[in-house]
Amino acid sequence: MKKIKIGIIQQHNVESKKENCNRLAEEIRKCAREGADLVVLQELHDTLYFCQTENPDYFDLAEPIPGNACDYYSKLAAECGIVLVTSLFEKRAPGLYHNTAVVFESNGDIAGKYRKMHIPDDPAYYEKFYFTPGDIGFEPINTSIGRLGVMVCWDQWYPEAARIMALKGADILIYPTAIGWDNHDTPEEQQRQTQAWITIQRSHAVANGIPVVSVNRVGWEGTYPDSTEGIQFWGNSFIAGPQGELLVHAGNEENETIVTEVDLDRSEKVRRWWPFLRDRRIDEYADILKRFAQ
Amino acid sequence: MKKIKIGIIQQHNVESKKENCNRLAEEIRKCAREGADLVVLQELHDTLYFCQTENPDYFDLAEPIPGNACDYYSKLAAECGIVLVTSLFEKRAPGLYHNTAVVFESNGDIAGKYRKMHIPDDPAYYEKFYFTPGDIGFEPINTSIGRLGVMVCWDQWYPEAARIMALKGADILIYPTAIGWDNHDTPEEQQRQTQAWITIQRSHAVANGIPVVSVNRVGWEGTYPDSTEGIQFWGNSFIAGPQGELLVHAGNEENETIVTEVDLDRSEKVRRWWPFLRDRRIDEYADILKRFAQ
Repeated sequence: MKKIKIGIIQQHNVESKKENCNRLAEEIRKCAREGADLVVLQELHDTLYFCQTENPDYFDLAEPIPGNACDYYSKLAAECGIVLVTSLFEKRAPGLYHNTAVVFESNGDIAGKYRKMHIPDDPAYYEKFYFTPGDIGFEPINTSIGRLGVMVCWDQWYPEAARIMALKGADILIYPTAIGWDNHDTPEEQQRQTQAWITIQRSHAVANGIPVVSVNRVGWEGTYPDSTEGIQFWGNSFIAGPQGELLVHAGNEENETIVTEVDLDRSEKVRRWWPFLRDRRIDEYADILKRFAQ
Repeated sequence: MKKIKIGIIQQHNVESKKENCNRLAEEIRKCAREGADLVVLQELHDTLYFCQTENPDYFDLAEPIPGNACDYYSKLAAECGIVLVTSLFEKRAPGLYHNTAVVFESNGDIAGKYRKMHIPDDPAYYEKFYFTPGDIGFEPINTSIGRLGVMVCWDQWYPEAARIMALKGADILIYPTAIGWDNHDTPEEQQRQTQAWITIQRSHAVANGIPVVSVNRVGWEGTYPDSTEGIQFWGNSFIAGPQGELLVHAGNEENETIVTEVDLDRSEKVRRWWPFLRDRRIDEYADILKRFAQ
């Protein structure tokens, strides 16, 4: 039996990077005390979600990998003896930046990194201004607790990405996220959006027969002078098992840290019951590689 | 505004083909009286789900396309003035059979057919014995009410299939289905299975920004002497909008015929809000065409 304990940390970020980082350190240590083997943080967890506006000054928030942010989380991973999934604003070169997840091994080593492949650009989510799309593909990251299919936020809407991670042997799919409501939308529309977000990610568990971990930020961020909308980040962080069943599910208002056990051996059982991988029509999927096929 | 009325007919089949067909005719006429433009039937709606056992005699149930079954449903479509999605056991040649959806235009013409591409084979679902995998690909069928992305049952677990239909311009995804519970499973396991089934299909709506129609049979079928299990078909037929939101959802016990209006213009609105098709990384999806990529 291969059971691991996974911790997820859903946070309401504030302007002070120091305060965000200190609070995360506390929560990571709390997860470790509760026996977590793996801890997953939300997207761009050190800062406010600066992509609400396009401001060249915010490139100052980016850091090289490795660099100071890596050092900070490396030490925490080693201190706690946990595998840690972080989400950083990567400065690769002047004028070249990525939205990058860095995974630390339980001894503090960098196990690997993933550069966000699908970059959104919508009102209040101006990510195409900041982040060059990733160029290292969909590669699971080997760690002492399994192969982690780490992606980031907008990637979660793409079944192709989840499938490729699974075909490359990912044991778990992991999505640090920053998504929320526009308060001008009706409650019904907000509900449709949140349910769609949960549904698409649970579906990756179903289609691929592996667990999914999704960690979203929570709370209101609206402090940008040229941003008229603001975002109410909707939380709802969750862990789903390999049939898409919700194992834990955070609320939409509060900071929450949850540690839960996940049985990785269950994935193979589920894949035996529902052998989707057996029957894929790879001879007929070529049109997937087209932009549009009509 | 392009609004259409869609009728779904969830049935408990009996051994008499004549009785199944008569009852379907009644229900199709009822849908037409309620203004349906499109009616969708469940998988292999004329007979019991004979794939519970492997018996060469059951190939007698297959019919050529066009043929008697087509004539029957063609007349009904023309009489009612509706587009009709049927699911037939196709005899293509002696020893060559398919699980084929045939779509009839509202004048009774055959608008097109789809041969089930992904064929399951699990205890009590011995479909690989009966059905050769489809060889006409994932091609939406043009009708007077839109391009229909018709697939069948097991196809519903494959995001690749839904995506290709969408890339080929499908306006709606449609899944005639026959899926149910093994009564030896716990209620919790049964619930996980049904939720997984709903989730994966709703996710195709979300990923592609188009509605999904899924029609399943309902009720117990266990009359095969060499089948020790039987199947409790779980119903739960539903129609979801382009955010995966459930518009109608049948129960798991009764015959149900439901007609509801679906606004096809909403799909484009949703795709503008959440422009997933814009950002697909087709340069990095090649591994989708592999059996396994590790």
